[in-house]
Amino acid sequence: MSTEMTHPAGTRVLILLDDPTGDDASRTLPLAAHLRQVDADDLHVSVLDLGVTRGDGIFETLDAVEGSPQSLEPHLARLANSARLLDLPAPSLDLYREAVHRAIALSPYPRISVKLVMTRGIEGAGACTGWVYAEEIPDFTAERENGIRVVTLDRGYRHDVAQTSPWLLQGAKTLSYAVNKSVYREAARRGADDVIFLSQDGYVLEGPTSSVILQFGQHFVTPSTDQGILAGTAQAAFFEFCEANGYTSEYRLVPADELAQADSIWLSSSVRQIVPVRELDGTARSFDAEVTAAALEHLLGRRS
Amino acid sequence: MSTEMTHPAGTRVLILLDDPTGDDASRTLPLAAHLRQVDADDLHVSVLDLGVTRGDGIFETLDAVEGSPQSLEPHLARLANSARLLDLPAPSLDLYREAVHRAIALSPYPRISVKLVMTRGIEGAGACTGWVYAEEIPDFTAERENGIRVVTLDRGYRHDVAQTSPWLLQGAKTLSYAVNKSVYREAARRGADDVIFLSQDGYVLEGPTSSVILQFGQHFVTPSTDQGILAGTAQAAFFEFCEANGYTSEYRLVPADELAQADSIWLSSSVRQIVPVRELDGTARSFDAEVTAAALEHLLGRRS
Repeated sequence: MSTEMTHPAGTRVLILLDDPTGDDASRTLPLAAHLRQVDADDLHVSVLDLGVTRGDGIFETLDAVEGSPQSLEPHLARLANSARLLDLPAPSLDLYREAVHRAIALSPYPRISVKLVMTRGIEGAGACTGWVYAEEIPDFTAERENGIRVVTLDRGYRHDVAQTSPWLLQGAKTLSYAVNKSVYREAARRGADDVIFLSQDGYVLEGPTSSVILQFGQHFVTPSTDQGILAGTAQAAFFEFCEANGYTSEYRLVPADELAQADSIWLSSSVRQIVPVRELDGTARSFDAEVTAAALEHLLGRRS
Repeated sequence: MSTEMTHPAGTRVLILLDDPTGDDASRTLPLAAHLRQVDADDLHVSVLDLGVTRGDGIFETLDAVEGSPQSLEPHLARLANSARLLDLPAPSLDLYREAVHRAIALSPYPRISVKLVMTRGIEGAGACTGWVYAEEIPDFTAERENGIRVVTLDRGYRHDVAQTSPWLLQGAKTLSYAVNKSVYREAARRGADDVIFLSQDGYVLEGPTSSVILQFGQHFVTPSTDQGILAGTAQAAFFEFCEANGYTSEYRLVPADELAQADSIWLSSSVRQIVPVRELDGTARSFDAEVTAAALEHLLGRRS
């Protein structure tokens, strides 16, 4: 593969990874030789790739601010964890890290999202497919300041399903995200913008693309990640903000009725950072605008 | 698009559908003008297609014997039903039907599988992506005659989840099939070949790529399809065989403990047709070889 990289005509950057599961210690070529910038408008995936025929692959999305990726190492660690949960070969984290930096360097925007993808590849071929894709992110100022309307929806699984039934892949960030799309359509039918999943046995889990954070006075709570949910990278940064500002924070089981009792609820995610909930299941809610602004500043200030 | 079709150098046939959700009644060009045969080894899917980034699409797989598709209309009906469950535009069934016949005509083998795919297309573009793909099927004689080893695995959902939580898309045949792949790996770890899903509340559901049929003497039972499972096309043909041969058949709830009581258990599916279960959760089982052979003959004899 060529290492030649140029600013594309369009606004998006796509880098294909040759050998995305290669052993970093034994590579003979430099990492850059395994990266190839291509036109994002061209077609690069086979109809036989298990990523498309079965949603059989993993991904991560992170934010980059002024040339610096946010929480890159936690995202890479989560990608590796998703690979383990799917019995995929370990992704080459050195190669993905290099591709992320390359994509950011090639992108002309101050604020971009960077998506890391690895599929199981073409059925029977035994080689994974990998790419990194960067594009400009929209402006979330209105949602962050005014809040969003959220509905709770049943995810159908018990809160302990990741322990009892690991083959259901709960806690992995997979390409099988049709349900995570479907619930946004259900939210829209209910006049809402986003979703908080509840377990079948009544615990707060996460959003389809976010973590949930609750405020009780000076104490902040998020659902514990042993419930088949993702360890949120933005949520972790929010808890760092809490610790730095004298607040306490906790990971634990959160019964659904605590949503109504919380002083504030936020959804945290890599690209949108945090947004407060201003309406839950049709009921107006207040939220702490001061904490929202301060935490957002901390989250946006992350570099690497 | 060109209507020129030729036998490919390889053994596989790939036909891309232009405008797969077009209104059949108002087309001005002939159907064939919307079909384009391409090389299956080339790349035809964008990394931005929601089929690959979110597993956001639907599919069907059917068998073709000696130039004739099996249960084509039930498969087309199920494709349309999956589209409804995912709030996708209705697929053009005339166009998919034409593409299936074309793919079969172009395939040099007497026994082929034909896969119909429709994705939501590139995010924001508002146009679905569609293709039909045909390849030779392997020989399943050994499994059909000797039976297979099966394990039961929890699907995590209650049996009534399709009614209570339709946003979970149970009963749709989607491209988000990572779990359906994952359970085969779990089965292999347990020394088995295939899986029967149980609902979280203890009912028999279906296999990851098959329906379940139980025999009790002259009476044949399959789980009712209001449990978020697919209406099996091969299972329906099996019940036709039952009716034609003086057996009775029934769709109903099947508590998991009935698996141990059944005289025979089969998994039915389009390409493998039916295979008997010779071992369930590590326990050897007998099965009715005579019914297996007769039903298989009926299933393989289907034309159109």
